[in-house]
Amino acid sequence: MAPQLEPFFKQVDASSNDFIDRLRKAVAIPSVSAQDENRKDVFRMGQWLADELTALGAEVEQRPLGKQPGKEHLELPPVVVARYGNDKNKRTILVYGHYDVQPALMEDGWATEPFELTIDEKDRMYGRGATDDKGPVLGWLNVIDAHRKAGIEFPVNLLCCFEGMEEYGSEGLDDFIQAESKKYFKDTDAVCISDNYWLGTEKPCLTYGLRGCNYYSISISGPAQDLHSGVFGGSAHEPMTDLVNVMSKLVDSQGNILIPGLMDLVAPLTEEEKTLYGNISYTMDNLHESLGAETGIHPTKERTLMARWRYPSLSIHGVEGAYSAPGAKTVIPAKVIGKFSIRTVPNMESEDVNKLVFDHVKAEFAKLNSKNTLDVWLQHDGKWWVASPKHWNFSAASKAVQQVFGVEPDMTREGGSIPVTLTFEQATGKNVLLLPMGSSTDAAHSINEKLDKRNYIEGTKLLGAYLHYVAEEPTSA
Amino acid sequence: MAPQLEPFFKQVDASSNDFIDRLRKAVAIPSVSAQDENRKDVFRMGQWLADELTALGAEVEQRPLGKQPGKEHLELPPVVVARYGNDKNKRTILVYGHYDVQPALMEDGWATEPFELTIDEKDRMYGRGATDDKGPVLGWLNVIDAHRKAGIEFPVNLLCCFEGMEEYGSEGLDDFIQAESKKYFKDTDAVCISDNYWLGTEKPCLTYGLRGCNYYSISISGPAQDLHSGVFGGSAHEPMTDLVNVMSKLVDSQGNILIPGLMDLVAPLTEEEKTLYGNISYTMDNLHESLGAETGIHPTKERTLMARWRYPSLSIHGVEGAYSAPGAKTVIPAKVIGKFSIRTVPNMESEDVNKLVFDHVKAEFAKLNSKNTLDVWLQHDGKWWVASPKHWNFSAASKAVQQVFGVEPDMTREGGSIPVTLTFEQATGKNVLLLPMGSSTDAAHSINEKLDKRNYIEGTKLLGAYLHYVAEEPTSA
Repeated sequence: MAPQLEPFFKQVDASSNDFIDRLRKAVAIPSVSAQDENRKDVFRMGQWLADELTALGAEVEQRPLGKQPGKEHLELPPVVVARYGNDKNKRTILVYGHYDVQPALMEDGWATEPFELTIDEKDRMYGRGATDDKGPVLGWLNVIDAHRKAGIEFPVNLLCCFEGMEEYGSEGLDDFIQAESKKYFKDTDAVCISDNYWLGTEKPCLTYGLRGCNYYSISISGPAQDLHSGVFGGSAHEPMTDLVNVMSKLVDSQGNILIPGLMDLVAPLTEEEKTLYGNISYTMDNLHESLGAETGIHPTKERTLMARWRYPSLSIHGVEGAYSAPGAKTVIPAKVIGKFSIRTVPNMESEDVNKLVFDHVKAEFAKLNSKNTLDVWLQHDGKWWVASPKHWNFSAASKAVQQVFGVEPDMTREGGSIPVTLTFEQATGKNVLLLPMGSSTDAAHSINEKLDKRNYIEGTKLLGAYLHYVAEEPTSA
Repeated sequence: MAPQLEPFFKQVDASSNDFIDRLRKAVAIPSVSAQDENRKDVFRMGQWLADELTALGAEVEQRPLGKQPGKEHLELPPVVVARYGNDKNKRTILVYGHYDVQPALMEDGWATEPFELTIDEKDRMYGRGATDDKGPVLGWLNVIDAHRKAGIEFPVNLLCCFEGMEEYGSEGLDDFIQAESKKYFKDTDAVCISDNYWLGTEKPCLTYGLRGCNYYSISISGPAQDLHSGVFGGSAHEPMTDLVNVMSKLVDSQGNILIPGLMDLVAPLTEEEKTLYGNISYTMDNLHESLGAETGIHPTKERTLMARWRYPSLSIHGVEGAYSAPGAKTVIPAKVIGKFSIRTVPNMESEDVNKLVFDHVKAEFAKLNSKNTLDVWLQHDGKWWVASPKHWNFSAASKAVQQVFGVEPDMTREGGSIPVTLTFEQATGKNVLLLPMGSSTDAAHSINEKLDKRNYIEGTKLLGAYLHYVAEEPTSA
């Protein structure tokens, strides 16, 4: 054990009620970034967080981001940045989190008041933002607090970047991070983000990869206005028929992407990588539980995890412009827009993917010999991210997990995207680690969001231990 | 010319201003059946119509239809039935029309007040209901009126059946017609319905066929709730992928239905029938004008008309449960319901069509090897209708067209359905004729609905002349 960990752990246990009180106060502020009427609460939450950090001895600033684009009557909530420690001989770790939350109403089906931390007999702490992301943010504050109370030297310089718009697209944050990368964040040696979840409920994980996402629209138009299918059916090319035909050529029922050349862009699976998946604490039952059905494609957990983490996937999301209500309507829609997206992985470059998609869609449409008009375009893209899990940032975190939880963490990737991850990597040029505190059952974004007391208190120990190991790890790639 | 026609025609011309005044009064009553707040106006319109018929010497009854199903606070408007003449030596003709109208608001884009008949310099009479269906209904009243004024014996017994819920699904009418078929309507020798339109603007037509419609839903479900495509994409069978695949096997871009055996149910095209289409007053330009685009499938008008009238067609209307809004959402929908319908023609029996559809959809889904769950069902069906255009009912109408307009009418079918047509045929067992008054440019159901003065006045002559020829025609098949 790193020499200072034992007194630190003891202090965390001794202060655990204070830490839970801290979380209770944070949850009580309904900092819902998506709702105009709560904007004042988001500001209040930022102020509260700044006050807490100041009281703990950090140098704090609330950085304004200006008006909200498209909603100019609203000010964007500030980024709360803080520095704790300024010792040239120590590593500087930049940590990110967010202090805004998703909307929550009792009538959505919550069992308890969403903005009142409620602890049940199994030590589950219910409340909006408990796990996403107030618990993890306060984890960093708790670490400072415990060090001060126990009189232990803080092992690193800590830079905090806590935003208040994460649940509404992180408006303004990318530009801020870019602008501060050579200023406020210039000393950063590595980045740590605690804003995702364990794969299950028992075993912590370190996350080193995320898939990207390229989102496409296919528009097919024909007549100048919607037609009556009785009057015109059979006499004119129908856009919906063409769209369904083209979309049926994108992916098969087994999830195989049918776009020629696309799979050639995917980094080959190495023998070494193959061995990683077998050790992951995950079962097919876990998948079936998440799906609420046994409709998984692959027979093994290894192949399932690869499908979610390291292979691309293509999903068809829906059709705009066609009849979508319950009941029956005999319309021939004049113009329909199909939506689909491809989750991207190394080494798929967005431009290459776009070209293959556009060529394929156009070629399939040409085969139809339709007089309708096709258009296909990229709505937005976000790049995949993969960090080196052998970097000292990860080995320090791994040692911390072993110290606190007595197990080696699962090294995981995720299928979805957390865009700020890539922004930090590109802006700082440093290794980024995702170090989750909550578990897979925490129901972030859903009703009855919770954080287990164990995840919060042991998670606080984990974040602190991570900083101690960071201070000791030899420099690596 | 039938002997009494000349004085009748003269009287119609002499009374034309009165007849236009009659239409003006009718248009001024906003008898919108779809809007609760106008229900009193629908009743007022029924009363006005009954009063007009009474004043013309008809025996009139307003038959109640009870409460509106699903809207029990509303009474259904009455069916206005009337008998004019009761001479056992004359034929009895049952005529149908409706006195309710579609909704209409200035802000929808009307150039004139919709409930104020406005006549422009080209003698186009604008107003909601002018052509659909107040003009044609009043045509029958005008015929009685002109006969009385000119002192001409009425050539037939006339039975009127005017409903007030046509624009809202003809609630209650089918049961009424069935119930009265052996009572109020028992003397009926033939039926005439004036509630459709000429194929173009110059040449009248007689309509002897309508396609039917079988409307289907395909539901495919998998996970218990919508999934995040980042987290689960690639690991689970996606209902939308399966649905798009199955729907792509229903019809091709050229309108060919891909359901095995379905086209075998279609009555073969005879050499005699083939010759009918060449003479129809219709051009490919007419099609392109209606479409607002040159996206017709077939190169000739003959093949186009056959596609609309005498061949089945399959249209895909949309998808329920998938993402249908503008923008981007990365959802994997848990359950999606595809909607499509088949326009049916002789000799397709609904049960046979259903079996072929269900078998095909199930077989195509089975090929996908998906673990998702499929369901396919018929939402509703309505049978096709084809009358014998050689019946005296049609030959009388044909002579009337030649007399009034100097041309032989086009013998047409329609691609859409007018369900009451089949109801009258089945309830009375008699020949049904569709004898339209308005033209293809009348914009029924749309803004700026109109009826040309020529169509109204010459149309009144047409309805009267038809009754005179009906009285003379020898009995036929």
